[in-house]
Amino acid sequence: MPGNSFGELFRITTWGESHGGAVGVVIDGCPPRLKLSEALIQRDLDRRKPGQNELTTERAESDAVQILSGVFQGKTLGTPISLLVWNEDARSEDYLGFSRMFRPGHADYTYEQKYGVRNWQGGGRASARETVGRVAAGAIAKLILQKEKISILAYTKSVGRIEAAVNPATVTREAIDKNLVRCPVQAKAREMEKLITTIKAKGDSIGGIVECVIRGCPVGLGEPVFDKLSADLAKACLSIPATKGFEIGDGFASTRLYGSNHNDPFQATRGKITTKTNHAGGILGGISSGQDIILRIAFKPTSTIGLRQQTVTTAGKNTMIEARGRHDPCVLPRAVPVVEAMVAITLSDHLLRYKAQCL
Amino acid sequence: MPGNSFGELFRITTWGESHGGAVGVVIDGCPPRLKLSEALIQRDLDRRKPGQNELTTERAESDAVQILSGVFQGKTLGTPISLLVWNEDARSEDYLGFSRMFRPGHADYTYEQKYGVRNWQGGGRASARETVGRVAAGAIAKLILQKEKISILAYTKSVGRIEAAVNPATVTREAIDKNLVRCPVQAKAREMEKLITTIKAKGDSIGGIVECVIRGCPVGLGEPVFDKLSADLAKACLSIPATKGFEIGDGFASTRLYGSNHNDPFQATRGKITTKTNHAGGILGGISSGQDIILRIAFKPTSTIGLRQQTVTTAGKNTMIEARGRHDPCVLPRAVPVVEAMVAITLSDHLLRYKAQCL
Amino acid sequence: MPGNSFGELFRITTWGESHGGAVGVVIDGCPPRLKLSEALIQRDLDRRKPGQNELTTERAESDAVQILSGVFQGKTLGTPISLLVWNEDARSEDYLGFSRMFRPGHADYTYEQKYGVRNWQGGGRASARETVGRVAAGAIAKLILQKEKISILAYTKSVGRIEAAVNPATVTREAIDKNLVRCPVQAKAREMEKLITTIKAKGDSIGGIVECVIRGCPVGLGEPVFDKLSADLAKACLSIPATKGFEIGDGFASTRLYGSNHNDPFQATRGKITTKTNHAGGILGGISSGQDIILRIAFKPTSTIGLRQQTVTTAGKNTMIEARGRHDPCVLPRAVPVVEAMVAITLSDHLLRYKAQCL
Amino acid sequence: MPGNSFGELFRITTWGESHGGAVGVVIDGCPPRLKLSEALIQRDLDRRKPGQNELTTERAESDAVQILSGVFQGKTLGTPISLLVWNEDARSEDYLGFSRMFRPGHADYTYEQKYGVRNWQGGGRASARETVGRVAAGAIAKLILQKEKISILAYTKSVGRIEAAVNPATVTREAIDKNLVRCPVQAKAREMEKLITTIKAKGDSIGGIVECVIRGCPVGLGEPVFDKLSADLAKACLSIPATKGFEIGDGFASTRLYGSNHNDPFQATRGKITTKTNHAGGILGGISSGQDIILRIAFKPTSTIGLRQQTVTTAGKNTMIEARGRHDPCVLPRAVPVVEAMVAITLSDHLLRYKAQCL
Repeated sequence: MPGNSFGELFRITTWGESHGGAVGVVIDGCPPRLKLSEALIQRDLDRRKPGQNELTTERAESDAVQILSGVFQGKTLGTPISLLVWNEDARSEDYLGFSRMFRPGHADYTYEQKYGVRNWQGGGRASARETVGRVAAGAIAKLILQKEKISILAYTKSVGRIEAAVNPATVTREAIDKNLVRCPVQAKAREMEKLITTIKAKGDSIGGIVECVIRGCPVGLGEPVFDKLSADLAKACLSIPATKGFEIGDGFASTRLYGSNHNDPFQATRGKITTKTNHAGGILGGISSGQDIILRIAFKPTSTIGLRQQTVTTAGKNTMIEARGRHDPCVLPRAVPVVEAMVAITLSDHLLRYKAQCL
Repeated sequence: MPGNSFGELFRITTWGESHGGAVGVVIDGCPPRLKLSEALIQRDLDRRKPGQNELTTERAESDAVQILSGVFQGKTLGTPISLLVWNEDARSEDYLGFSRMFRPGHADYTYEQKYGVRNWQGGGRASARETVGRVAAGAIAKLILQKEKISILAYTKSVGRIEAAVNPATVTREAIDKNLVRCPVQAKAREMEKLITTIKAKGDSIGGIVECVIRGCPVGLGEPVFDKLSADLAKACLSIPATKGFEIGDGFASTRLYGSNHNDPFQATRGKITTKTNHAGGILGGISSGQDIILRIAFKPTSTIGLRQQTVTTAGKNTMIEARGRHDPCVLPRAVPVVEAMVAITLSDHLLRYKAQCL
Repeated sequence: MPGNSFGELFRITTWGESHGGAVGVVIDGCPPRLKLSEALIQRDLDRRKPGQNELTTERAESDAVQILSGVFQGKTLGTPISLLVWNEDARSEDYLGFSRMFRPGHADYTYEQKYGVRNWQGGGRASARETVGRVAAGAIAKLILQKEKISILAYTKSVGRIEAAVNPATVTREAIDKNLVRCPVQAKAREMEKLITTIKAKGDSIGGIVECVIRGCPVGLGEPVFDKLSADLAKACLSIPATKGFEIGDGFASTRLYGSNHNDPFQATRGKITTKTNHAGGILGGISSGQDIILRIAFKPTSTIGLRQQTVTTAGKNTMIEARGRHDPCVLPRAVPVVEAMVAITLSDHLLRYKAQCL
Repeated sequence: MPGNSFGELFRITTWGESHGGAVGVVIDGCPPRLKLSEALIQRDLDRRKPGQNELTTERAESDAVQILSGVFQGKTLGTPISLLVWNEDARSEDYLGFSRMFRPGHADYTYEQKYGVRNWQGGGRASARETVGRVAAGAIAKLILQKEKISILAYTKSVGRIEAAVNPATVTREAIDKNLVRCPVQAKAREMEKLITTIKAKGDSIGGIVECVIRGCPVGLGEPVFDKLSADLAKACLSIPATKGFEIGDGFASTRLYGSNHNDPFQATRGKITTKTNHAGGILGGISSGQDIILRIAFKPTSTIGLRQQTVTTAGKNTMIEARGRHDPCVLPRAVPVVEAMVAITLSDHLLRYKAQCL
């Protein structure tokens, strides 16, 4: 199957280039009779949109979403939901110089080689603008999860070497949205903001880690063997632009533990089975265990920088490149809602799969 | 779709429980006219099989593979290839006591809750014995890759805190297979072996990291957006039992870099375009760039340990458990061929997808 | 997977309700570098569009297609192509009375029961307006087939009891498009037109058969077992609204033949292998044989009629209904391009699948 | 996806060649906790097996099924069910002469051209022996349907020109299985048997029609647009070897009706909504309506005949061929359980899909 769809039963297909006419998404398989409005989707899109503040790209997009199908009198019909956002502030002339050279760190070279053709305006299909569709679809996925009292919170855990100590069990949306970097530890957030501002002034960029906690997930989501919940979450998150790593629970740190301190002992308290610790991060054998699911995603520094870099032309000649085009010096603040969306879509899909086979 | 298949065009479906009659795999979509024999598959299975040496479980399985379909006069037919391995040394009586309690770190609890029924013998479907099918299918995938001169090498990078400094560009199969832990740095390998032996004596277990390098991969594999090569490799690897993390290129370390030192500059040398560095790990925008693809997978310590642990019974009572059942004190040595197999299957699939759309 | 996508490698997803804002389609997996314009797609849409002449519904839609993504400087990019057609002449007030009763022969009742909600305006998602997306996608599929010199011609074979004797081997697009019913035998076409006009005056409707011939199809398309080319063509065609039957080659007539007169003898003429007869209709064992592929689809009489009919209300009371809403007295003329589109999409998909596995 | 799997949520993958070691099927997605035994599957397999009586091929296969996975203590586990049947009476020497020529009506030529290699023993993968896996999987699908009180009955409706007038609403399994051709009208059945016997003596073969009725199907199965229940049933049935046509409800006869006599009026009787007639055959807009679902499948005469036929060699020379190899002079009697199986698999799949989205 071609690679622009995600999910088996709750299935999304995104489309659109950065500087094409519009970007959008079709959601197929959404349960009927959910209350859905453009305003509800817009709320999530506004958290992702560019130009929010001085830490993000200046590209000014209202990102106003239109529902073109699948909703009638405020309710989902069970038929495909088509959502569209027009591209407004596309400045293609910024990219004219890049039609004949490959920006380092970007997908220019690999697209050109793969397809023999490439929309060089603003990164084309490889632009993070594609994530508009993911976030819009994620807003609908969250409606499904809400009915089961499953909630998702993502936040910036680190920027560069600045890392916040966050307790996933108690973190709140309020604390996360109190600052521009979306880090729930306010003091650390201020440090991160300062770092990003400095980096930006230099024309450079920086990476970081997003952490995400899923609360209220029932036991039983995820399928043994290939479609483990952890494996599907990994794919979901590593399909986000600029990602380079994924961990669940203790992740790479678990490789340095002994079984005797990594295994989470089961305990029964008034009939309810939980684990005393949560090294596993809420998933056992690929299936949710009822504990909080905790995962982390590594984002590399933004590829677009203002500094001179060595590269080659499409004709294969060595040259120097200096980036123009508006961009984020650090993708973390705007990546947070994208991670939430992809996690929500993955969980909704597995929820429907669980209902199909086991209920 | 149910979760026991992997791949779109080169598609495998594994089946079998640890102590059921047999385990196996059906491979659909394999190109016709490839030379294939049981001996060729056996070579890879023998690297995975239990009881190889004192570092692995004592379960004695010959793991002799039978080709039941899809091959005629030594050549693949293009029709499904069915492979079967009988379970010989299943000692179900070892697990009798576990039918009524949940082993910590295992999938006993989540399977029971999800399905309302569970084969408690040797972990049932959640057993790593399921990976027999993956390794057998991987041997066939490698045939497809060989024709394109793509090679895959996985090895043990670390066990606990012992980490080997390996150069992925020059590592050899010979160096990897020279010792029992499959670490190409012999001195480190000896340390690892010693650690595992010590851990085993204590009835405990330990984790580690497998690194994998793919050489000779052409530019163009992987699809933009959801089916990025990196995302599909992540899913492939995190579907392996006991995995908790995945990295590509610099992975989590890239979060601490600046764009100016993370971006890999392009360079043209006699018409050939390469990158000066390889922080990206051979994938740009989800598509292979022609550079070596480098990835790392975190394996947790084996869940089965010989020590007493707290747990609950299926009736929801607190109790203590002491594991029996033969097991590996460290899964790394036998995980190496499983990683290679999953990577080979993923690449073969993307190679066929590339041919379909772009050639 | 939800039911609004079709195809594995050349994959289309349609969306939109009859009286929603718009209808559209996303095409994923299209090969790159094909010359594509809105004008090219419009040509096929104009053959399907309503209000063409007095035999079709008076709904006046310009059906002007917009390409929103996937095309750059006149060429396909290999990324998803999003096509959109706005609904202009939706007269929802015609349907107000039907919000509380079920039109016989329509999907009102089954949608209401399945989803617990229904867009009762113009049939909602069940409207034949959905086929706009299919025809638009079909125009692109034909580009792929043209490169391989595969051509598709569909035509009206019968309306009611009036049947035309057509030779599929020699029929031309010119003869088909010479009249309003799209029947290549002009004398029969006139009879059919007269019948439809009479039926329409009575407020009634009539069915008929569309025949389709595929010429130039190479040997080898179609997969053994479940995805036989014939099985996939059957699904493609029976997914078109108002269809009730499908035949390939001699179809139901073959059940009355003996093997000795149904089997098509092979013959070699100057190195080229053909069959002397073509009872099989161009497919053997589910795989194209290189002979013309010939299929027929049965369309029932249009469900919307102007006569009084017995039905029930959504509250479950018996009542009488008199249809309003503009409609075609016979779907055949406009079904012809839809059949062509679905056949083109199916073949393109199998062409890419063939390339992936066998080339 | 390669073509040897069927179904989305209840998904089967068959494998095996006629004269390979074995044939089998893997069923993925089966709900857990269903009572399942080899005896239950065998009952259906025995209705399909060769050598049942003088009307069928003499090939003597016990077709004893083995459950290799997915069942524990008599219950399904929710994990893949692997079923295997060994090939016992394969007489490959019968086919030696055919390795270098193409049997008319068979898939020899198309397989050879597509794959460049072919198992010429007994038809290889194209043999109807592949349907063993379908019937075995169908037995499990029926378990799922039984819980919802959905039942399926298929029977021989015609052989050649001998057609039985059957009332689908009242037909019984007892009447169907009272004779060798599985036609519920006993007098017609005797005529059919006589015809088949005569045809067989001449070395010729004959076709016929299987009709199938599904009773007790709830409203709501089937998805709008592409995965209409009718479209998926068509694909399911036309994937069976030797099929050439498919009809639902009035099928091709509906093309000669007016809307006013084809539309089925709705009626409410004590709160229950039904239709007065059932021209639609139980499906409206692709979704089951709660009425009996009625379909018919056209089977061509068996391709293998004992008479001399013209053909070509693999080297492209004209020649004559005289078939050997044991075969059925008429596939209808053994096709009946295969149709039932495919219909059961399709319905089970749609039942699970319905649960996932709408419950």
